[in-house]
Amino acid sequence: MITPKEGRRRVVIEAISPEVDGGRFPVKRTIGDRVRVEADIFVDGHDSISALVLYRPDGSEFWIQEPMQPLGNDRWSAEFTVTELGRYRYTIQAWIDHYETWRKDLLKRIAAKGDTAVDYLIGAQLIEDAASRAVEPDASFLGEQVSIMRSEEDLTRKRESATSHALNEAMVKYPNRRYSTDADREIVLVVDPLRARFSAWYEFFPRSTSGVEGQHGTFADCEARLQYAADMGFDVVYFPPIHPIGVNFRKGPNNLPASDPGDVGSPWAIGSAEGGFKSVHAELGTLEDFRRLLRRASELGIQIALDIAFQASPDHPYVKDHEDWFRKRPDGTIQYAENPPKKYQDIYPFDFETPQWFELWRELKSVFRYWIEQGVRIFRVDNPHTKTFPFWEWVITEIKGEFPAVLFLSEAFTRPKVMYRLGKLGFSQSYTYFPWRTVKHEITSYLSELTQTGVRDFFRPNHWPNTPDILPEFLQTGMRSSFLIRFLLAATLGANYGIYGPAFELLESRPVRPGSEEYIDSEKYQLREWDVENSRNLRDLITQVNRIRRENPALQLDWTLQFHHIDSDQLICYSKQSVDEANLIIVLINLDPHHAHSGFVTLPLDQLKIDGNQPYQVHDLLTDAKYFWHGERNYVELHPDRMPAHIFCLRRSAHTEADFDYFL
Amino acid sequence: MITPKEGRRRVVIEAISPEVDGGRFPVKRTIGDRVRVEADIFVDGHDSISALVLYRPDGSEFWIQEPMQPLGNDRWSAEFTVTELGRYRYTIQAWIDHYETWRKDLLKRIAAKGDTAVDYLIGAQLIEDAASRAVEPDASFLGEQVSIMRSEEDLTRKRESATSHALNEAMVKYPNRRYSTDADREIVLVVDPLRARFSAWYEFFPRSTSGVEGQHGTFADCEARLQYAADMGFDVVYFPPIHPIGVNFRKGPNNLPASDPGDVGSPWAIGSAEGGFKSVHAELGTLEDFRRLLRRASELGIQIALDIAFQASPDHPYVKDHEDWFRKRPDGTIQYAENPPKKYQDIYPFDFETPQWFELWRELKSVFRYWIEQGVRIFRVDNPHTKTFPFWEWVITEIKGEFPAVLFLSEAFTRPKVMYRLGKLGFSQSYTYFPWRTVKHEITSYLSELTQTGVRDFFRPNHWPNTPDILPEFLQTGMRSSFLIRFLLAATLGANYGIYGPAFELLESRPVRPGSEEYIDSEKYQLREWDVENSRNLRDLITQVNRIRRENPALQLDWTLQFHHIDSDQLICYSKQSVDEANLIIVLINLDPHHAHSGFVTLPLDQLKIDGNQPYQVHDLLTDAKYFWHGERNYVELHPDRMPAHIFCLRRSAHTEADFDYFL
Repeated sequence: MITPKEGRRRVVIEAISPEVDGGRFPVKRTIGDRVRVEADIFVDGHDSISALVLYRPDGSEFWIQEPMQPLGNDRWSAEFTVTELGRYRYTIQAWIDHYETWRKDLLKRIAAKGDTAVDYLIGAQLIEDAASRAVEPDASFLGEQVSIMRSEEDLTRKRESATSHALNEAMVKYPNRRYSTDADREIVLVVDPLRARFSAWYEFFPRSTSGVEGQHGTFADCEARLQYAADMGFDVVYFPPIHPIGVNFRKGPNNLPASDPGDVGSPWAIGSAEGGFKSVHAELGTLEDFRRLLRRASELGIQIALDIAFQASPDHPYVKDHEDWFRKRPDGTIQYAENPPKKYQDIYPFDFETPQWFELWRELKSVFRYWIEQGVRIFRVDNPHTKTFPFWEWVITEIKGEFPAVLFLSEAFTRPKVMYRLGKLGFSQSYTYFPWRTVKHEITSYLSELTQTGVRDFFRPNHWPNTPDILPEFLQTGMRSSFLIRFLLAATLGANYGIYGPAFELLESRPVRPGSEEYIDSEKYQLREWDVENSRNLRDLITQVNRIRRENPALQLDWTLQFHHIDSDQLICYSKQSVDEANLIIVLINLDPHHAHSGFVTLPLDQLKIDGNQPYQVHDLLTDAKYFWHGERNYVELHPDRMPAHIFCLRRSAHTEADFDYFL
Repeated sequence: MITPKEGRRRVVIEAISPEVDGGRFPVKRTIGDRVRVEADIFVDGHDSISALVLYRPDGSEFWIQEPMQPLGNDRWSAEFTVTELGRYRYTIQAWIDHYETWRKDLLKRIAAKGDTAVDYLIGAQLIEDAASRAVEPDASFLGEQVSIMRSEEDLTRKRESATSHALNEAMVKYPNRRYSTDADREIVLVVDPLRARFSAWYEFFPRSTSGVEGQHGTFADCEARLQYAADMGFDVVYFPPIHPIGVNFRKGPNNLPASDPGDVGSPWAIGSAEGGFKSVHAELGTLEDFRRLLRRASELGIQIALDIAFQASPDHPYVKDHEDWFRKRPDGTIQYAENPPKKYQDIYPFDFETPQWFELWRELKSVFRYWIEQGVRIFRVDNPHTKTFPFWEWVITEIKGEFPAVLFLSEAFTRPKVMYRLGKLGFSQSYTYFPWRTVKHEITSYLSELTQTGVRDFFRPNHWPNTPDILPEFLQTGMRSSFLIRFLLAATLGANYGIYGPAFELLESRPVRPGSEEYIDSEKYQLREWDVENSRNLRDLITQVNRIRRENPALQLDWTLQFHHIDSDQLICYSKQSVDEANLIIVLINLDPHHAHSGFVTLPLDQLKIDGNQPYQVHDLLTDAKYFWHGERNYVELHPDRMPAHIFCLRRSAHTEADFDYFL
């Protein structure tokens, strides 16, 4: 027979939110967020209960308490604000509030003119109990109430005391938490800097910045491109790997299996006699040059993100010094990367099953640490899904334990559950399937999954219309409208988005061959010159949209995203609001780059707190045009050859009809 | 710095199903069930994986293994059959299958005519490793393959060996589970007797069976009523409490606060000088009489369910002997049940916060044990939500540990989360909100929640159209059609259902006052005579429906329930199938007791495996009428004054048009 330890803990706490996989993984938030904690809390019978959320930053010994409020249907909630970077913990405590049960019943009995004599004696016991925990002057006050309740005074006097606001106020300060129930776990919350939630990324290849045909760009050359990105309003600039590039099996242009002398190779084939993950490719400059570039970025309000690709070229020093970190084949050679029949002989993957696995982990961690010491705070991780999950959980937890402001972007273009697992393990942001979600129902269902389900507690999307590996079919039309559509979707659907430029804004659209998503003459294997002064450049529109994003808090978060009905399959409509609901943005995009489309959009006026009885203004932040809309259904028409979208800022303020005369 | 223990466990196991609250509570099944276990299982990179479900009855030391199969999207599944009552455990183990990875890559390389020389050497290592675990003759066979792979033989010979079915068959027998991942929990599964899933309950008051006005019925009198219930096809007969009834504060007829001598009182005011929970009310007979009745029930194929109401009348021996199990008021009296301003002075609730709580628990457990010793196997528990949750979890686990065939029905007509919690804690069946779900969308959404979500893993519905406490408004019309509609819904929506009779089948419909759901002249407070020979009696139809339920396995389970579109709000259509899909029942009910309604029903033919290209027969098991339907849309018309429902058995067997000539 089992003997339970304490069978008197009557209150139940269930279904806590937020929570990832029953508390197995941390919940993610950004600094300054209000965290709303909810749970189902209930007890047998009819007793009243009280509940607290207890929370603390990981370093603090003391729990901070926030009383929970009932929402109905046994659901309770409380909110707190996270003000420090790093890890917090929270949990819930709940107990039967015998005082409140007594008070509630007494009030009912008084209302029903029932017999209350014994009730005051019961109340006296409860108040006496609270008094024993109280400090002055509450203790004396409560003592007096006990005396009244037990006195020979008439019931009127007792009733006044028992139902007084002063008594209630004193009593709730000294609850009796005997047999309280503690939630069976503490949930970890990771608080990231704001940039984890709101960022505009710009990727470029440092080596393609010389402006001179065939000349390798340097970090010094990058300064102008950095300025260019800053002028467009980007706040993260991300570089492909900047390390020495292997010589053996170096790839030629367009991924040719062999290279000629002078071919620059792929930056992802990392390591040569010059060094590896902690070195800088000599043709780009020195470490000091890189640090200077970091300082310049900082002056421009930009953070530079480094690409971390944990794989070695055959020439990486590790291959010689740590042969046992790689898999040996029976013929004595090292196993190169392979997806039969494809061979990637320029790349040796690490063997995470090596007996020296922990030595390997520590070394890889030291790579992050090294670049953090140089001033890097954001890492884009290449193919994290081909390294082991336990490693990522460990290394991210370790690094963020020391440097809580550091962010990791997961480049896992892989199966859905693997992508999500990496989010759970700690990646701050993740690439998404956005490049391939082009029609309305795909965009609607995918973005709803990302922003309106429990996924959002651990997975922060970062939407990219293109990358050096992905030139989606949609962009292969080469039409300005196609690029605008994908850019506007990414930048308004996602508080985090990025483009690979200047390829993107210069409408680079030629695949290496029909049916491929690889660029022809890809910068992955050769230098490219980009004529950013070309009039086709989308920079002005990009600049404008990044400014709109900065000026409108609604576009700085993902969770308020809502799709609205519009009676055309080619038009999509969605809104986002700021947390305080003051800023409401309504986006309308024509998904068809070829033809104009029109339709009626239906807005849920009540939910958006729009007064349907008077006209309201929608102000297109792209064209500065102002429209007056009436009621829930309004007409829109979008011409992709002009501008395929509206980004409306909605003015809720009340007007009289007279106000509109001016516009009529 | 954290040093992980084993960083080489690369495989991830997530989202196991079935599972209740992350494994906190057992999953429920009935004996003979196929249990389908699923999980998301995946690894970094492209290696192949293998996975097993491990399961065992709680008594067994040894895990039984069932290999899992991939379902796509990283979901895996395996099934096993539960053949013993009581508790099982299951868990999942998964590992990287380096042999399968090698084999898969080798086949691709052969297909691409790539270089395979080194592959055979790698294979030799893997086979040698398996050989070291193998028994004869496999060990020798595998050893020979190693020799071939390492020999100077030509590649053709090696390829034949490496790709042979024989090698693969031997290799999968000796997997290398190095660094395998175990799911982080074992999930408990409670296997109940079939009756937990499929039962028809009939409740009657033993004291109302004498057939003579004013004469208290006895257990001997109950035999005829038992026969009557058995004739109707019920298999569980449930009695309100059969214990001595308190005298102090005894209620009079129609719940009058006072009683006259001769008033019989409420059976739920348990205990008198004659005894308490382990005694039999003298007017019903002796313990021996009760045991005789149990034997008679057994002969009839019926189980008698006892009502267990853990509360005492002021006269219960506990009040004297265990004063400390009740709450004392400051005036020295014991706290009676109360919901201010209502007082229930005939009932003392137990104080589950007593310091003697565990003594109380043990005593209450002994009550179950006592009646089990007399031969009772089913308990209907009165108001379990007013006793503590930890008590129920403990007592049900204890009792079922000793007597796994025992069933508990939870009478918790309370808030949704409390109802569900009691299911999680171990109750085998639960009363539901069915009495108040009368319109189509309510029935559809509630029954879908119960049968098509994770709720079904822990909560087994038992639908009652009426109880002694609940005469729903819908029945207060007193119309035969109203009773038929509610009966047919309960008996076909629920594999478990029950009625309180003879009130139900005699169309008892008068409330104690307008707006009340209490019966007038309720048997709860007085004797009643029932003229079961009255021609209004619905017994024939009830008998027929219980026979249909027994003959159609589709109606013996809840999980295959599916609602189908029918274009009238007053008509509802749903289907159920047997596990093997051979038996398909389609139910159509007119929810309006007053008017005939008609409409077209739409069936998902593909899903129901009906050939839409030829007519198919629907055979009404209520009227024996046979209809031929064509395609997915067919017309129905139901007249409540005749029969408000069809219970169609669908014949899927193919016919030629000629077969129908006879009917045309």
